[in-house]
Amino acid sequence: MRIIAVDLGGTRIRAACLDEGLNVLQRRETPTGASEGKAAVLGRIEDLITSVWPPEIDVLGIGVSSPGPLDPYLGIVLAPPNLPDWQRVPLAGLLERRFAVPVRLGKDANVALLAEVAQGAARGCRHAIYLTLSTGIGAGILCDGRMLLGRSGLATEVGSMMLLENDVATRLELEAAGPALARQARLRLAAGEKSLLREMSDGDMRQVDAALVGQAAQRGDPLALALVSRAGRLIGLALTSLLHLFNPEIVVIGGGLSQIGEPLLRPMREVVRREVIYEGYTRELRIELAALGVDVSLVGAAALLRSDYGVRKQD
Amino acid sequence: MRIIAVDLGGTRIRAACLDEGLNVLQRRETPTGASEGKAAVLGRIEDLITSVWPPEIDVLGIGVSSPGPLDPYLGIVLAPPNLPDWQRVPLAGLLERRFAVPVRLGKDANVALLAEVAQGAARGCRHAIYLTLSTGIGAGILCDGRMLLGRSGLATEVGSMMLLENDVATRLELEAAGPALARQARLRLAAGEKSLLREMSDGDMRQVDAALVGQAAQRGDPLALALVSRAGRLIGLALTSLLHLFNPEIVVIGGGLSQIGEPLLRPMREVVRREVIYEGYTRELRIELAALGVDVSLVGAAALLRSDYGVRKQD
Repeated sequence: MRIIAVDLGGTRIRAACLDEGLNVLQRRETPTGASEGKAAVLGRIEDLITSVWPPEIDVLGIGVSSPGPLDPYLGIVLAPPNLPDWQRVPLAGLLERRFAVPVRLGKDANVALLAEVAQGAARGCRHAIYLTLSTGIGAGILCDGRMLLGRSGLATEVGSMMLLENDVATRLELEAAGPALARQARLRLAAGEKSLLREMSDGDMRQVDAALVGQAAQRGDPLALALVSRAGRLIGLALTSLLHLFNPEIVVIGGGLSQIGEPLLRPMREVVRREVIYEGYTRELRIELAALGVDVSLVGAAALLRSDYGVRKQD
Repeated sequence: MRIIAVDLGGTRIRAACLDEGLNVLQRRETPTGASEGKAAVLGRIEDLITSVWPPEIDVLGIGVSSPGPLDPYLGIVLAPPNLPDWQRVPLAGLLERRFAVPVRLGKDANVALLAEVAQGAARGCRHAIYLTLSTGIGAGILCDGRMLLGRSGLATEVGSMMLLENDVATRLELEAAGPALARQARLRLAAGEKSLLREMSDGDMRQVDAALVGQAAQRGDPLALALVSRAGRLIGLALTSLLHLFNPEIVVIGGGLSQIGEPLLRPMREVVRREVIYEGYTRELRIELAALGVDVSLVGAAALLRSDYGVRKQD
C-alpha cells in the first residue's frame, strides 16, 4: 500500500508517494501560481498527484497539508490568506471524486506535529505541542495521542492567545511574530537608534525583515537583541500558559524564526523556568527544535491517513 | 450495581450511594476535622463510605473528588492547600485495599465538568470547558469526549494562564479571583475612596471579602463595579484564549464568584465578543452558568467510574 501526500503552499505545491512507514519514495513540485485562479491551481494539484501515483500498488488515500483556516472534519479549505480566491473550497471531496480514495485535510501546523510525532523530535509521544514561529505563530497539539481539533476544527490558534500590554488587549503573534519584529525594528531605526541593521540593509528600510533582525541579533547588535529577546519573553509567557493548560512531555519549536536560535530561545526558556507554578510541569519536559527538514509537510500529510492520528469525523 | 461517591473538602466530607444513572440514592456528611490529622480524616472517610454502602447490591467502584494538585493516574493526593498534612497520600490505593473495588480520584474542577456533562448545562457535549471562579480559578476541559489531563495529570490550570500587567508577568487568578477582589477593594478603601463597602462592612476591613464586593457591585457601588468589571475583563481575555485554543461548544461557569452575575459576566462576554479572531468561535457557542447544585461533586465523582469519561491509565 502507498499513501499520497500533498503540500499546498502559497508559492509552491509539492506531492509525494510514501510507503506505509511514511518513507518518501518519490516527490514532485510545481509553482502554485495562485494568481491564475483556483481552477488552475486545482488542475496543477491533480496533475501532480497523477505524476506520483504508483502504477501497480494500491493507494490507501491522500493526505493534504494546507494553510488554515480549514475544516478538517469536512475537508474544506476556508479562507487561506495566500490563496485569495479560495473561499470554502471542498478540496477533500473534489479529490475523493477524482481519485476514488479517502482524502484527509490538515492545517500545516497540525501536519507538522504529526510528522514530528511519527519521525521527528516527538517520536512516540502522546502529549506534545508543536509551536511554529514564523509570519504567524501556530501550533499543533497532541492530547493523549489525539490531535486537538475542537468542535469545528478551529482549535490550537496559539498565535491568538491574548496578552495585556499596558492594559490594552493584544494577541501573541501581533507582538512576537516575524512582521512584529520587522515593524518594531523599523520604528526604532526611524527614531534614530544605532544598529548594525543600518549597514546590513544598506539603509533601505524595506530590507529590514525578521530574518535580518535575527541575523543582527546573532551578531550581538543591541537593538536587534532587545527586540528578539522581548519576542522570546512573550513567547515564553504563552508557552508557560500552554504548559499549565496541557502538561505535555515535549514542546517542539519550528518555523523560520526558530532559526534565530539562542537570542530568541534563551529568554523564552528563562521565562518558562521562572513563571511555571510547580516544577512538575518542567521536571521531565523536553523543549526541542523541530527535527525534520524539507519533507516535514509531506510526511505529516501522509500521517493524516493513519488511523491513530487521523482526523475523526465529528459526532 | 451502585457507585459510591466521596467529596473530600477542606471543611466537610460527603459520601453518597448512586445508581448507574448517577442518581443520588443516599447521602451522608461529616466535618473534615483536618486539624486532627490525616489518620483521623482517613478514618472518617472510611466510616462515611461504610455508612452509605448498599447492603445487598454490588458496588461498581468508588469515585473521589479532591482538591488538587493530585495524580489522577495513580490516585495520589499530592498537596491540597486546605489539608495541610496530606502530602502524596495514595488515597485510591488505600480505599481499594479497604473496600476491594476500583477507586478513581479526580480534582474538583474535573469532577464538576463530568457532572455538568452527565446531567447539567453541558449534557451530551463532547467539547466543553467548565470554569470555576472562586478563591482560585480552575477548569475542567473535555476534548472530543475525553477529559484533558496531561502527561502527569497537571493540565487545565487555567488560573495560571499568564498575563502581562505593565510589562510584568502575572497569573490570571492573582488578578481576578476572590482574594484579589478583596485585596484591591481594601487598598482603595484605605486610600480613602468612597464606597458602599464602608457601611456594608461596618468600617471593619476584615469583613471586606469577595462576596461583599460582589454584593456592593450588584447594588451599583462604583468602586465595587470597577473592580468586578476589571476581573470580568481579565477572565474574558483568558476565556478568549481558551476559545482560540479549544474551540468548545459550551463554556460552563461555576464557583462562588459566578453568583455576582451580570456585573462580572457582562464585561467578560463583551471582551470575548470583541477579541475573538473569527466569528466561527462564538457562532454556536453557549456560555452558561453551572446547572447543578449541591450534589455536583457527588454526581461528578461517581461519573469518574463510567468508562467513557473515566481516567485512563497513562501508557
